[in-house]
Amino acid sequence: METKNMEAQAVLTPEELLAHWQGHRRLTRRTIEAFPDDKLFTYSVGGMRPFGELALEMLHMAEPGLKGIVTRKWEKYGDSHKDATPTTKKDLLAQWDKTTEAIDKLWPQIPEGRFQEIDKAFGQWEGPIYWNMMYFIDNEIHHRAQGYVYLRSLGITPPPFWER
Amino acid sequence: METKNMEAQAVLTPEELLAHWQGHRRLTRRTIEAFPDDKLFTYSVGGMRPFGELALEMLHMAEPGLKGIVTRKWEKYGDSHKDATPTTKKDLLAQWDKTTEAIDKLWPQIPEGRFQEIDKAFGQWEGPIYWNMMYFIDNEIHHRAQGYVYLRSLGITPPPFWER
Repeated sequence: METKNMEAQAVLTPEELLAHWQGHRRLTRRTIEAFPDDKLFTYSVGGMRPFGELALEMLHMAEPGLKGIVTRKWEKYGDSHKDATPTTKKDLLAQWDKTTEAIDKLWPQIPEGRFQEIDKAFGQWEGPIYWNMMYFIDNEIHHRAQGYVYLRSLGITPPPFWER
Repeated sequence: METKNMEAQAVLTPEELLAHWQGHRRLTRRTIEAFPDDKLFTYSVGGMRPFGELALEMLHMAEPGLKGIVTRKWEKYGDSHKDATPTTKKDLLAQWDKTTEAIDKLWPQIPEGRFQEIDKAFGQWEGPIYWNMMYFIDNEIHHRAQGYVYLRSLGITPPPFWER
């Protein structure tokens, strides 16, 4: 019954969610690119973190989070890049692209039915896996949009939101 | 075969997506509330639209968009509130709450299998319905996050992002 219910009412497939995420990640990449090199890790509005730091948070969640979803083993949040944190736009984009490939490789390994399992992301945030996965994406949309305001306040037009 | 595939790999159910959306909408409501009355429709950063206008955009998409998903008939984007556009925080919140109720009422009427249909949202934006639905949510996250920057630049702490 449970399974039948999911069948009749599924919203989207994991493949579609992956395409959705990678579409958002392409837009975030363009947002990183839009920042002048000397502003990416220094400029912000209202005492918030610079966009480079927000992008690093996205990287902390993306591959390590997906690894936790695939393997059911979670590293401590923030552990992944502690030895090689990008500090320039070039290095950040390189890390971004590495993560893009890693995501494409990891995604098909998500166990069947995993999205409906309850788990504690990074040993901290308990909820269904679909919720955690959407949190990673939502958090990226949220912080990228803050980058849009930083860009506008620098007089730079951000990439169109609807283009993925 | 197609259906079997969806069954095995479903990410989340429509009920879960509704809960996800209404969770985001509760957070957006708290963001509206956090603005001082005299700043909601006047204040912005970098020449962008004030948060009240961004919230109106969300309302233009939410109920009219969901109506289009349910009925397969789309009104022109922006038509819904043209005669009664809220211009105060109190009226905006009242409209927000009305929309919350309307969404809860409309959602169960989404036809089975509808999320995978291709359609043109508001007669303009073509794609699968799940994509359009996620666009409405993503657009809300995106603009709400811009409101967070406005609040920070006013010296006001926005509501916690993870609380829904």
